[in-house]
Amino acid sequence: MEYKNIELNDYEAIKALINDDERVLYKEAIGEDYSHDELGAVKKMPDLVVQAACTEDVSKVMKYAYDNNIVVTPRGSGTGLVGAAVPIYGGIVIDLSRMNKILEIDEENLTLTLEPGVLLMEIGKYVEEFDLFYPPDPGEKTATIGGNISTNAGGMRAVKYGVTRDFIRGLEVVLPNGEVTNLGGKVVKNSSGYALKDLIIGAEGTLGIVTKAILKLLPLPKKAISLLIPFPDLDRAIETVPKIIKSKTIPTAIEFMQRAAIVAAEEFLGKKFPDSQSDAYILLTFDGNSKEEIEASYEKVANICLENGALDVLISDTEERQESIWSARGAFLEAIKASTTEMDEVDVVVPRNKVAEFIKYTHQLEEKHEIRIRSFGHAGDGNLHIYILKDALDEETWNKKLLEVMEDMYAKGRELKGQVSGEHGIGLAKRPYLKKAVPEENLLIMKGIKKAFDPSNILNPGKVI
Amino acid sequence: MEYKNIELNDYEAIKALINDDERVLYKEAIGEDYSHDELGAVKKMPDLVVQAACTEDVSKVMKYAYDNNIVVTPRGSGTGLVGAAVPIYGGIVIDLSRMNKILEIDEENLTLTLEPGVLLMEIGKYVEEFDLFYPPDPGEKTATIGGNISTNAGGMRAVKYGVTRDFIRGLEVVLPNGEVTNLGGKVVKNSSGYALKDLIIGAEGTLGIVTKAILKLLPLPKKAISLLIPFPDLDRAIETVPKIIKSKTIPTAIEFMQRAAIVAAEEFLGKKFPDSQSDAYILLTFDGNSKEEIEASYEKVANICLENGALDVLISDTEERQESIWSARGAFLEAIKASTTEMDEVDVVVPRNKVAEFIKYTHQLEEKHEIRIRSFGHAGDGNLHIYILKDALDEETWNKKLLEVMEDMYAKGRELKGQVSGEHGIGLAKRPYLKKAVPEENLLIMKGIKKAFDPSNILNPGKVI
Repeated sequence: MEYKNIELNDYEAIKALINDDERVLYKEAIGEDYSHDELGAVKKMPDLVVQAACTEDVSKVMKYAYDNNIVVTPRGSGTGLVGAAVPIYGGIVIDLSRMNKILEIDEENLTLTLEPGVLLMEIGKYVEEFDLFYPPDPGEKTATIGGNISTNAGGMRAVKYGVTRDFIRGLEVVLPNGEVTNLGGKVVKNSSGYALKDLIIGAEGTLGIVTKAILKLLPLPKKAISLLIPFPDLDRAIETVPKIIKSKTIPTAIEFMQRAAIVAAEEFLGKKFPDSQSDAYILLTFDGNSKEEIEASYEKVANICLENGALDVLISDTEERQESIWSARGAFLEAIKASTTEMDEVDVVVPRNKVAEFIKYTHQLEEKHEIRIRSFGHAGDGNLHIYILKDALDEETWNKKLLEVMEDMYAKGRELKGQVSGEHGIGLAKRPYLKKAVPEENLLIMKGIKKAFDPSNILNPGKVI
Repeated sequence: MEYKNIELNDYEAIKALINDDERVLYKEAIGEDYSHDELGAVKKMPDLVVQAACTEDVSKVMKYAYDNNIVVTPRGSGTGLVGAAVPIYGGIVIDLSRMNKILEIDEENLTLTLEPGVLLMEIGKYVEEFDLFYPPDPGEKTATIGGNISTNAGGMRAVKYGVTRDFIRGLEVVLPNGEVTNLGGKVVKNSSGYALKDLIIGAEGTLGIVTKAILKLLPLPKKAISLLIPFPDLDRAIETVPKIIKSKTIPTAIEFMQRAAIVAAEEFLGKKFPDSQSDAYILLTFDGNSKEEIEASYEKVANICLENGALDVLISDTEERQESIWSARGAFLEAIKASTTEMDEVDVVVPRNKVAEFIKYTHQLEEKHEIRIRSFGHAGDGNLHIYILKDALDEETWNKKLLEVMEDMYAKGRELKGQVSGEHGIGLAKRPYLKKAVPEENLLIMKGIKKAFDPSNILNPGKVI
């Protein structure tokens, strides 16, 4: 692919389009942060950064890029884990984090209209004031909603509520040629032509740039309760999960964790978890509108766990206790990261009744490849977060082992009829594994779709496919 | 578009592929039913019908068609309302209604795997035995699940549970070149490349032929209750709906109906509705796991209705009473049809707080165009079903008036930021209105997507776009 290099006259032209010099950064003025996301392993500086303030900014810059064959990479707050926001061909980064206004809450249609740069943690806080609820709950609360849409982020509450896709009613999108279009709207149903909105969701900024979103909200559940359930070992903990699903209760979230992750989180946060004596835990939340409604569910689940070897059932019904548990859960990733020199992750998703088999397999891989592997994740929806840790390995050994472990894990994922990524996306890092997992036919169709949106391949090329 | 005409040697070749003469029908042997769906206004006989019995049948025939440039139209039980299953270019119809086996219920993953020809009414019955629930509930229970997937059918319960798309975990699809591929699976989350599964959903059999589906199930709610609420007039009835939504209760369904529709249904069914004295009604259902849980919701809603002018609140808590109300609701379409010589329908969807405005507008159109218009529909999700009735009009006047009324209605739909179709799809009949409603850019992208799947445009051409 041959793209035009950015030169001084492009900088001048784009400055003139944006009409605010401070929001157009050129070469040396660009901070190092723009060269990477949380993947870390891949870095590349863009030649120009535009900090967009409105849809028009995005549209104008995109149109200029289209007319001049310049490559563009959109970026939210840079918390992605697969390199989707890294400008691997240089060119322009459009930073959407300043487009962070909440535009409208519509209580009659239960929607929230907002710009893509609004952070996930702000959405929850904002809608709660109206007794409303935006269920998707990925661990990374400083991600933007635009980023969440672009990866179809899932999070903890997917067991009961589903993923980001299920809560996007409408999108405003700037297409690769700079045109602004609207997909969906405040409507609840839609069977009007191909599902373009659903294509943009999860496309990691390769088909269009989301500049506005209409989210679906729900009434805020009045009560929530968490159960922390210690088990003598991880197998018994995870094997209980399909039995919970089968029992026809619907927990909001079911997470699993091992002592090692908890201890690391305790150290990292400098505070104690309610219990860290046991080898493995499952953590459940139930929400609903009354204590009675929730109690009926969790008593059933508590009994199932005890029948399947649980050592105890710790109930957290105060906000403080729940906060302490979930903040530890939220710190797992950072804690694991702090415990090693470098790491890489696998975000595979398997059918829920295959989680135990997959985790057991990662333990075999630890021995086989003599490398430390840590995992935690969404036992209730089959989405695992598995971290391969470099520790004291030298660069060469690390790269070799990492590749082998990855190959093994994704092969196992395919064997269990899983998918490469549950919620982090493909970006740059997972492309080889997507290629192996998906039939050639499907990849060709995906390429055709990319071409339909972006015939000159200027929007975030080299990602996903 | 130039397609190869089917000749005797094609018939022989396809018979050899299928290896069961009785399931391959040629010319005169083809029944008239294959020439149309419920749209009625457009008819065209296919040259060959294959009653597929398995995925391989579909794949072989599709591959033959691809190699020979023959046009193929897939068909379920033919209950579509927009002509999507009409073979307007002749060629082959692949009838999927014999692929009607339920393959697996998986209680640990809460999924049901089945063939596309299974009827909607069979799904509900089957999963109930396992205390499970497939929520999508379109009025037409003799539709196939394949048809429901292809139109992204919605139905009554979309208010609480969403539409077909929300309950499709995975699909097996035969592509236009005959290749069989799998999209999604039993996994709960997926961020692995472009959302091809979501593209197939709602594509009305123009991108691929669904040969297997994995549905998401929920635990069956233990209780349900219906409220029939008479109002002195339709405006007051419909204007109450956004207030119900705003009250943060979540009814399963909110339907509106007028006396005329009820009386027609009473005559059609030969049995009485619980009440038909009032001008307008809203009908609500609530479901949940305990009487208390439901009661708290419906008492709140009943009070809101009474405060907003409702004349009464009729509670149906026995299965028999609910059955009598909902069977009348289910008969509306047939009853209206029986009351006139010919009719056409509009399936527009608008934001929920615009339903009243739209219905008022249809009343103005009745006067303006001097034509009878009847409507009922999903007040709770903004999806209206509006029927324009020919009655004693002569053909020429009818065609003229119908066109004018349609133009007016879709213009109003656009003004209210609605969409052309909430759940019936675009097919053949709504193409001109989709073209007006959707930006040129989007249509071009849709055409590009069609090309990515079906470069020779042999699968159900002339539909949707």
